Amino acid sequence: LHERLPLQTTAVAGAFARWGVPRALEPAGALPQAAWRLDDDPEPGEWEIAIDVERLNVDSASFRQLREAAAGDAERVAAAIAAIVAERGKLHNPVTDSGGMLVGRVRAVGAALAASGEAPAPGLRIATLASLSLTPLRLDAVRRMDLEHGQVEVEASAILFASSPWAAMPDDIEEPIALAAFDVAGAPSRAGSLLRRGDTVLLVGGGGTAGLLTLHEARRRVGEEGAVVVSDASEAAIADVDATGLADAAVCADATRPLEHYDAVMAAMGGEADVAVNLVNVGGSELGTILLTRPDGTVLFFSTATSFNAAALGAEGAGRPATLIIGNGHMPDRGATALRALRESAELRAVFRRRYVGER
Amino acid sequence: LHERLPLQTTAVAGAFARWGVPRALEPAGALPQAAWRLDDDPEPGEWEIAIDVERLNVDSASFRQLREAAAGDAERVAAAIAAIVAERGKLHNPVTDSGGMLVGRVRAVGAALAASGEAPAPGLRIATLASLSLTPLRLDAVRRMDLEHGQVEVEASAILFASSPWAAMPDDIEEPIALAAFDVAGAPSRAGSLLRRGDTVLLVGGGGTAGLLTLHEARRRVGEEGAVVVSDASEAAIADVDATGLADAAVCADATRPLEHYDAVMAAMGGEADVAVNLVNVGGSELGTILLTRPDGTVLFFSTATSFNAAALGAEGAGRPATLIIGNGHMPDRGATALRALRESAELRAVFRRRYVGER
Repeated sequence: LHERLPLQTTAVAGAFARWGVPRALEPAGALPQAAWRLDDDPEPGEWEIAIDVERLNVDSASFRQLREAAAGDAERVAAAIAAIVAERGKLHNPVTDSGGMLVGRVRAVGAALAASGEAPAPGLRIATLASLSLTPLRLDAVRRMDLEHGQVEVEASAILFASSPWAAMPDDIEEPIALAAFDVAGAPSRAGSLLRRGDTVLLVGGGGTAGLLTLHEARRRVGEEGAVVVSDASEAAIADVDATGLADAAVCADATRPLEHYDAVMAAMGGEADVAVNLVNVGGSELGTILLTRPDGTVLFFSTATSFNAAALGAEGAGRPATLIIGNGHMPDRGATALRALRESAELRAVFRRRYVGER
Repeated sequence: LHERLPLQTTAVAGAFARWGVPRALEPAGALPQAAWRLDDDPEPGEWEIAIDVERLNVDSASFRQLREAAAGDAERVAAAIAAIVAERGKLHNPVTDSGGMLVGRVRAVGAALAASGEAPAPGLRIATLASLSLTPLRLDAVRRMDLEHGQVEVEASAILFASSPWAAMPDDIEEPIALAAFDVAGAPSRAGSLLRRGDTVLLVGGGGTAGLLTLHEARRRVGEEGAVVVSDASEAAIADVDATGLADAAVCADATRPLEHYDAVMAAMGGEADVAVNLVNVGGSELGTILLTRPDGTVLFFSTATSFNAAALGAEGAGRPATLIIGNGHMPDRGATALRALRESAELRAVFRRRYVGER
């Protein structure tokens, strides 16, 4: 790496190796997400983990694009995936700029990483939480294709970097439920880290997967002396919130209509939230969420539809000094908070079974 | 308001009045930023402040558009401004969706707001920090137009809401310097609130107006036992940083090239920052800033060029759990932190004089 890039210190070279910079081929010396092409050599380097891949869970935007371009033909989708991986050394869809995640078993760990004690043991079955858009992948065969859910069973080898997040697959939770939970695991974990006993918490758009897991963690953290209020635009989602028995109030209201939403939520909450978590999957609810939060409170934005400027300029124009936090999905608990919610609440688990494994 | 909107509680009606909802004419019942047209009646309502306006400082994007559309003709720019204000009841440029700020003197304060003790006194000369895109304005005459700086001297009346931020104009600091400082005053104030004595602080893109003010506040907060490091892509900006004598190191490096920037900054900083403030006015430096911050540290993004998803997904892919904060420009200190920096540092003030009042 020192030869390819003129670096000032060996400490920097070590950091770059942990992030996968040596895998970038086009251009050399790039971060792997930004690189067009990665080195797909299945042998792990010093700071890498080699994975025998079982299944690719393709990002929904990417899979929809691939399926439509292939007119719904499974073999053509498989060929398109193989072509991307052969060209780029990763399943990084150039049209949607997105990837997905994978499930597989650890085959080998590089010596430096193994010595650090931070790597998963060979043989462990894991899900990767880093995007496939930065994961070196060599695809040997496509075994089976689930055109509905974007799941592709494969024979393949992937490389994780020392910096790449991953989670051990649990054996007591159905796999589709565990993967759905891992996909949003940062939300309950990060939201929980902001909460204190007695807080009033508002989950805006809180009836989805991330919202329900966050609801459980919020209830644990604020206790019975706190209050947890959920709003969601969907009647069905609110019925699921009610079924968990975890919320003090669940309000069916559309957060993209900020003043009607404010009116409905304030009637249920009786005052401003100490902490609000925005989980609305469309834009336009940033200022409405801020206005429902105490001026000295905190708003955590956990939707990729969030507009940085709508939040920052909205708060400024309304004279609201609240702390506004970007929902960084990486937390060091490797999904443990999300799995605990599913283990502790039978009612929550039942909602997830209906949503993800088709149970009635 | 209760008649126009079927509200659940009078508390909600009071909140809406403080935000200016009763001023929305098209559509009725909207937040004033979102409304197409506002009521420009110069008489203040219960929760309003009436201002005799001296000067409009038009947002630079808006003014550039107006000037180009008028082929640089001052009278046509004035006519275009008058037409927007007549149609919308506010100087909300429909092409750029932006406004600006104004300077004027408080003429009258509504009874409810006056009784709350939170309003400026009649006669006080203030700058509004809420955007002109949400400020009711009646324009009587354009007196003079500064085509270079987007400043328009006017006879006009404006309305501030109880929620609208404002700052008292100082009499010991040149007006262009005070206005430039107010425009970014949230940066030093909010960054300062995150810092402790002994911290290592990195200001990425820190040679601009916001960066220099934040540099002074960071130095105050971390003390001599802490460290403040500034990077900027501009040699001239780095020379200004050096001239203040406030930074432990100033590095000329381009944060949009994340790995070269990392290498250069780490050589100067010797380790990761506890707190990093990103002030880069173009996109693409989000992940690079996160990688220079401790995993349990904090990154404050204070540029409107920040991409929410580049920050959130970048941190997730790199396995970095740092707290990522949206730079909410509103702080309750009404610009006092920014003005203190200009008062306490003669060297800083000299840089601002060169930049904003043309002193050599």
